[in-house]
Amino acid sequence: MGINEQKPGLQQAAQSTVADLADVVAGLRLSREVTHKIRHRGQIRELPSRAALEKIRDGLFAALFPSHYGCPDLTDETIDYFVGHTLSQSLTALNEQVRRDLLFLPPGHTDTPAEEQATAIVRDFAAQLPCLRGMLAEDLMAAYQGDPAASSMAEVLLAYPGMRAIIHHRLANVLHKLGAPLVARLLAGISQAETGIDIHPQAQIGQRFFIDHGTGVVIGQTAIIGENVRLYQHVTLGAKRFTEDENGMLVKGEPRHPIIEDNVVIYAGATVLGRITVGRGSTIGGNVWLTQSVPPGSIITQAQSRLSNEA
Amino acid sequence: MGINEQKPGLQQAAQSTVADLADVVAGLRLSREVTHKIRHRGQIRELPSRAALEKIRDGLFAALFPSHYGCPDLTDETIDYFVGHTLSQSLTALNEQVRRDLLFLPPGHTDTPAEEQATAIVRDFAAQLPCLRGMLAEDLMAAYQGDPAASSMAEVLLAYPGMRAIIHHRLANVLHKLGAPLVARLLAGISQAETGIDIHPQAQIGQRFFIDHGTGVVIGQTAIIGENVRLYQHVTLGAKRFTEDENGMLVKGEPRHPIIEDNVVIYAGATVLGRITVGRGSTIGGNVWLTQSVPPGSIITQAQSRLSNEA
Amino acid sequence: MGINEQKPGLQQAAQSTVADLADVVAGLRLSREVTHKIRHRGQIRELPSRAALEKIRDGLFAALFPSHYGCPDLTDETIDYFVGHTLSQSLTALNEQVRRDLLFLPPGHTDTPAEEQATAIVRDFAAQLPCLRGMLAEDLMAAYQGDPAASSMAEVLLAYPGMRAIIHHRLANVLHKLGAPLVARLLAGISQAETGIDIHPQAQIGQRFFIDHGTGVVIGQTAIIGENVRLYQHVTLGAKRFTEDENGMLVKGEPRHPIIEDNVVIYAGATVLGRITVGRGSTIGGNVWLTQSVPPGSIITQAQSRLSNEA
Amino acid sequence: MGINEQKPGLQQAAQSTVADLADVVAGLRLSREVTHKIRHRGQIRELPSRAALEKIRDGLFAALFPSHYGCPDLTDETIDYFVGHTLSQSLTALNEQVRRDLLFLPPGHTDTPAEEQATAIVRDFAAQLPCLRGMLAEDLMAAYQGDPAASSMAEVLLAYPGMRAIIHHRLANVLHKLGAPLVARLLAGISQAETGIDIHPQAQIGQRFFIDHGTGVVIGQTAIIGENVRLYQHVTLGAKRFTEDENGMLVKGEPRHPIIEDNVVIYAGATVLGRITVGRGSTIGGNVWLTQSVPPGSIITQAQSRLSNEA
Amino acid sequence: MGINEQKPGLQQAAQSTVADLADVVAGLRLSREVTHKIRHRGQIRELPSRAALEKIRDGLFAALFPSHYGCPDLTDETIDYFVGHTLSQSLTALNEQVRRDLLFLPPGHTDTPAEEQATAIVRDFAAQLPCLRGMLAEDLMAAYQGDPAASSMAEVLLAYPGMRAIIHHRLANVLHKLGAPLVARLLAGISQAETGIDIHPQAQIGQRFFIDHGTGVVIGQTAIIGENVRLYQHVTLGAKRFTEDENGMLVKGEPRHPIIEDNVVIYAGATVLGRITVGRGSTIGGNVWLTQSVPPGSIITQAQSRLSNEA
Amino acid sequence: MGINEQKPGLQQAAQSTVADLADVVAGLRLSREVTHKIRHRGQIRELPSRAALEKIRDGLFAALFPSHYGCPDLTDETIDYFVGHTLSQSLTALNEQVRRDLLFLPPGHTDTPAEEQATAIVRDFAAQLPCLRGMLAEDLMAAYQGDPAASSMAEVLLAYPGMRAIIHHRLANVLHKLGAPLVARLLAGISQAETGIDIHPQAQIGQRFFIDHGTGVVIGQTAIIGENVRLYQHVTLGAKRFTEDENGMLVKGEPRHPIIEDNVVIYAGATVLGRITVGRGSTIGGNVWLTQSVPPGSIITQAQSRLSNEA
Repeated sequence: MGINEQKPGLQQAAQSTVADLADVVAGLRLSREVTHKIRHRGQIRELPSRAALEKIRDGLFAALFPSHYGCPDLTDETIDYFVGHTLSQSLTALNEQVRRDLLFLPPGHTDTPAEEQATAIVRDFAAQLPCLRGMLAEDLMAAYQGDPAASSMAEVLLAYPGMRAIIHHRLANVLHKLGAPLVARLLAGISQAETGIDIHPQAQIGQRFFIDHGTGVVIGQTAIIGENVRLYQHVTLGAKRFTEDENGMLVKGEPRHPIIEDNVVIYAGATVLGRITVGRGSTIGGNVWLTQSVPPGSIITQAQSRLSNEA
Repeated sequence: MGINEQKPGLQQAAQSTVADLADVVAGLRLSREVTHKIRHRGQIRELPSRAALEKIRDGLFAALFPSHYGCPDLTDETIDYFVGHTLSQSLTALNEQVRRDLLFLPPGHTDTPAEEQATAIVRDFAAQLPCLRGMLAEDLMAAYQGDPAASSMAEVLLAYPGMRAIIHHRLANVLHKLGAPLVARLLAGISQAETGIDIHPQAQIGQRFFIDHGTGVVIGQTAIIGENVRLYQHVTLGAKRFTEDENGMLVKGEPRHPIIEDNVVIYAGATVLGRITVGRGSTIGGNVWLTQSVPPGSIITQAQSRLSNEA
Repeated sequence: MGINEQKPGLQQAAQSTVADLADVVAGLRLSREVTHKIRHRGQIRELPSRAALEKIRDGLFAALFPSHYGCPDLTDETIDYFVGHTLSQSLTALNEQVRRDLLFLPPGHTDTPAEEQATAIVRDFAAQLPCLRGMLAEDLMAAYQGDPAASSMAEVLLAYPGMRAIIHHRLANVLHKLGAPLVARLLAGISQAETGIDIHPQAQIGQRFFIDHGTGVVIGQTAIIGENVRLYQHVTLGAKRFTEDENGMLVKGEPRHPIIEDNVVIYAGATVLGRITVGRGSTIGGNVWLTQSVPPGSIITQAQSRLSNEA
Repeated sequence: MGINEQKPGLQQAAQSTVADLADVVAGLRLSREVTHKIRHRGQIRELPSRAALEKIRDGLFAALFPSHYGCPDLTDETIDYFVGHTLSQSLTALNEQVRRDLLFLPPGHTDTPAEEQATAIVRDFAAQLPCLRGMLAEDLMAAYQGDPAASSMAEVLLAYPGMRAIIHHRLANVLHKLGAPLVARLLAGISQAETGIDIHPQAQIGQRFFIDHGTGVVIGQTAIIGENVRLYQHVTLGAKRFTEDENGMLVKGEPRHPIIEDNVVIYAGATVLGRITVGRGSTIGGNVWLTQSVPPGSIITQAQSRLSNEA
Repeated sequence: MGINEQKPGLQQAAQSTVADLADVVAGLRLSREVTHKIRHRGQIRELPSRAALEKIRDGLFAALFPSHYGCPDLTDETIDYFVGHTLSQSLTALNEQVRRDLLFLPPGHTDTPAEEQATAIVRDFAAQLPCLRGMLAEDLMAAYQGDPAASSMAEVLLAYPGMRAIIHHRLANVLHKLGAPLVARLLAGISQAETGIDIHPQAQIGQRFFIDHGTGVVIGQTAIIGENVRLYQHVTLGAKRFTEDENGMLVKGEPRHPIIEDNVVIYAGATVLGRITVGRGSTIGGNVWLTQSVPPGSIITQAQSRLSNEA
Repeated sequence: MGINEQKPGLQQAAQSTVADLADVVAGLRLSREVTHKIRHRGQIRELPSRAALEKIRDGLFAALFPSHYGCPDLTDETIDYFVGHTLSQSLTALNEQVRRDLLFLPPGHTDTPAEEQATAIVRDFAAQLPCLRGMLAEDLMAAYQGDPAASSMAEVLLAYPGMRAIIHHRLANVLHKLGAPLVARLLAGISQAETGIDIHPQAQIGQRFFIDHGTGVVIGQTAIIGENVRLYQHVTLGAKRFTEDENGMLVKGEPRHPIIEDNVVIYAGATVLGRITVGRGSTIGGNVWLTQSVPPGSIITQAQSRLSNEA
């Protein structure tokens, strides 16, 4: 049994006298190239860089909300220069990341060079930014109105993890749709690291969406969420089971996450699993475990826990 | 239904040939100034900066615990210079952030200029630091004694998210009380991003407080916590429902979170909701869902789950 | 009761006119040296630095996975220089951190100077890196195969918090075993802050381990996990209760966390507590609360919640 | 005699056992505040910062010559955003430096607050930039045409110390005229450190000016230089003697440096001293030492050195 | 006359009320694109970057002299990784700068794309580095032996401007010969700014060359210097006059600077002009002004100045 | 003759096909270890670092003149913390550089470990700082009074290369005397690079010393300068000839530079060579070439150049 076996490789190395640096470098090369090669199609490949995308993200946040995430001392006279310059730097950098993403596409699927495709994707992405900012402003309004602790929109925009997560998601979702799935996924990973909220970039989320507190929320790849939906911390919109093909391999990408219709509220800790539908206007109570569709207007709560007074 | 509508704005932009940068900049200006204006009272306003507050936080941590969070090579001869210099830089920077916070107050509520108010707030804040350090040292002791995995206080102070969260909170709470609520909220947001623990700066927390592991803990705005309280990961001290006014708007700031009396322990995943009281010395078991007050000395556990052996 | 007492120290300071900087510095010195001294054995001591360890972590990630976490423009001709240089810098820096860790050992337990011990530990650590990379490549494969949303190994390696957490853990675990427990713990703390996954460095984890989504997962100090185990978000492998000695102090380090045998899957939100065994091949359903051992092949699910349609 | 006295203070300190840090800090305070006070009018005063001005200089160079000193990846579409943003940042920073400069003006000489004056000066300065760029382009052309080693204008603009010095000078000269003499002088000092060319910001220099090689050139405060003038390295346009007032103090600011009329060439190492005039079209040979006016069209060379063949 | 005309453009702008930022940006665009266009062949072109070349220079110095200019903590085990990594980064960056340089070549002069040419140039350059290091080691030895103030070779290598200048020059000279003249010139410009020594990259300099002190030395484009030559500060090896073509334009690149044969010493301030030859073994005294060839073994000194005792 | 031989090594390498990186790294190792070894006593040795000394220099300037070279926002309340912290950081860093310097001393000359010696040197150095600041304040006053262009002491302190050079020199001179000659020399090298003024750290310079403009000034190792001396640009106080020993090697360290007595002024371009004495109160005119002692009160000028009007 795995637990009792003592990972012999590790043991052995520890018992040997000492490695010197050249041995370690050679060992790592052997691992990279022979025993544990994980390179895509075998060559060194330029990969999208998480660090580069963090900077691009900073630039996009600043371009969308310059007085909140931009630089100090902006005035009506200077703000457009700031936005234009920040955008041009961020989009140029994004172009390179998208180009690297396209190297993962199966070879031969198109004649257009990756550079050109990347440029087209980034231009489309840029063109959607004003519209996307509008959606975010409505999300912000929904958050401000939906939380009695919120005292200003600036507070929500700067300090709420749920708000920051939805900004990341709407950006990632556009990039995913335009054909840069790995870049989109990295952006979602950056968001998860900072907010504790894990939204797959492919998930479809309608307007005026609000996640309160948010830490621990998971929204799966094929989830579809309507308008005016509100979630609290630790809510999972997950898959119930995975389909395997005849070889026992998981079938990738099949619809397997819930559909949440408009005006639904889901309280903290609720787990909603599988391709079920939560009908519009429903309320799902805290800690509810839901694996079946419910009609519009349902109010589902966990029956009172049987609590015992142990003493 | 919102899900089926295809967010027409986004679609349309994507179908247009391509935007050029000037169009995007103009589109964003339109969004900022006309269609989705979110500025407070309409002008560009200097806002407290999350990035500036991260640096200030680093400085305050270093001043409070110079051998743990300060610079290397400190000696008895040099440590006060380090503390004094670090504090003076951090407090000067904090002053500016507090001044920006005060711009959110309703106009005309005082004759004192924002600069002077900010200076007074920061001086009061500084004066409380030695005392606050004492409280944190006791929290640290509580953590060290309360976790069998803790092997030194340095380990707790440097590596425990719960400890880092309580340092952030005690700083934010003082700033909130002194009249810098947005700065306090940003500090709490920074803490949440790093620890996964979300404590509203207004929450009142007594001495010797310990959160073990901590990820996913949420403590709401009007919660009141006594002394010697211990929480585990994923505990929520939340609101049950919100009061609406006659216009259907949420009433802001009303007491709606629990009161936890002295010496209470709340285990992982428990959810305590509403303005209820958990009596002193009580123990709330893991995953308990509690919406009613319990008397002192209660031991509440979830009744044994009915587990099924599906196979 | 603690809640009603108004933390008199804080109040008083706030009421005094104003402190000036020299008073605050003196107050902090008094707190550090007299009233709330937390130094280990009384002197200023160089402590391992969280910031230094973040850089070392970056270097180790880059040396293990140079095309994913290293610098751009690597070629077959240059990659070994990059790996060798990055390693030599990271290991030199690690040496210093380990030396500081060793200062915490009880005095007189060995005649070898801390510098020599640190060097020996770091050489052993380095020697294990190629082997450790192999284990991580298998974890990566397990993740790729176990998640239908994963479209490439690069995606998993760069964007999955669960994957990043296991890299941190395997590094921390080797350091813990070699005798640098505080450094190991700091590495785990850094991982927790970025991934929301909290694994004690002493926990033993077998090959092909995968945590999906991962936020909120807690794995305790004495947990033992076999091969091919898969966890989802919010799973806790925790202690049920702590043993106290005759003085009421917690006994440190006793086995108190679960043993999870090979091929077990544990779904989101399940809580497994105490030194129990989950038999090989078992499946533990979402939100299950488990405090008793289960035999191999068990499929444990929470019985259907009693849901009420409140309206 | 000063040489034989052994600086008793230094000796004594060196002989004393050892100073500790607190003594040194106290000694420096004593020196600053009592024995060697150099503060202007006695208080701590915010001074223009050399480091801040280096950044501002970088910004102005970039705004004037964006493809040579700006950032890469500029396009026709993005260049104005870059220029506008860079300018707005640099001018804002310059504003603060000019404000500090104005604190040196004698008190009571104007009712306008320093902030307003600074803003007015910086706006005037900005307004002159397009015109100033035109002058620099002509200087550049003169250099390109005047040096047979110059192979492109890019080479001259990027690599010629003489070209870099004239850019610094024209900026400093405008600032001097607008009333920011200390800022102007710091800019000249920065230029001198980088180019070895020392031009007082008050010196008046006409169009199409070129200094070849340039190191060691000194141009004094009241020098006046016409159009199409060319200088080589080590040329000095200096003062011959200084006027003293009745108290033996030097009279500040009196005209005491040469007037160089249009189309003059002055070769390497020539020294031109005093308020003399070098008539238009003259050529001054290398190493010439000139202290008298010469009429237009003069060709002055040092008579052949009497060289001796010593062996 | 130019002096009396008051630069009307500047005046006018200063008199106008105030410019706003948009006007300045537009004015600069007009200057760039219409009135004072200095772009090579009219388009925006990526130019070699001075800042990038400073970093490349640092890398090359470190690769050539790793214990003097590299990072600390190098050992016999790690030094080659450092050298290899530093070289690969520097050469990759140099490749890009050389590529930009090649864009200045007249169009159509070759079918090889600039990328390929740049790669070939950089590989040739790299191949010469070991040999070039040998030459520099001999220059170093010459300096150490030639200056009674030099107490170690480390002192010369780290602190002597003359030594730093010759390192820059030998690198620049190779790049110039290989076909990257603008990059070479920028490197020379960087050297001049730091050392005060101005050597054109095309100048040919033999082995065991030493410049003592060095500030103010100028060595022109077509100068040829033999072996074992020593120069002091302020020495100029310049052109006497320039040849003009029939249009009055200077003829570029013609031999016009001195030939200095082996074993010559030239003392401080000497000026040697024109295509003359200083015969081997000659000594040229301080401040000598030399415009005619001298035979081998000459000892030329300035005849005693006629000094006057003015009082 | 050296000029005609074509540096065969370089040629050959350039003609070979192409080197790859491993060959270059191996070639450099061969050069370092075999053919052109320049290491002191053969091993890799930690050398004082120019970059580290630049930071230390910044710190010392800031500690000596905190409102001119320190950070903004200093107040009477905070300035000592700034000075103390900056000093403690700079002195700790200096300690390490001095320790490396001591490794160059001949082995066995003392029993005290280098660490202890370095600490003693740095403590002595620190103890002299207040006194040294006093000397600098007098130099500053001398400069202010001696230059009619100086409008404030701040201008002199921040912008005059001569003033910056004397600060560097006085620091370097103390370090030289205390036994850290290589560190002192590096500091002088840093100064030379920034100011164009080259003063050997061993040169003895009395109080109230002023160098105007300064670029090109060279002051040799054994020069002795009295009080109230003023120099202008391009002045050399150099050696005339060097003494050779019986093997033809230069004798190191012999007195060979001038003695300049109190109240002497030396104008631009004057060259004073050899161990001669310039008597107190003398004036040496511009471009004078002086190799003989002159009595007190001399006024030496170059006789009028014979200028010819060539046309």
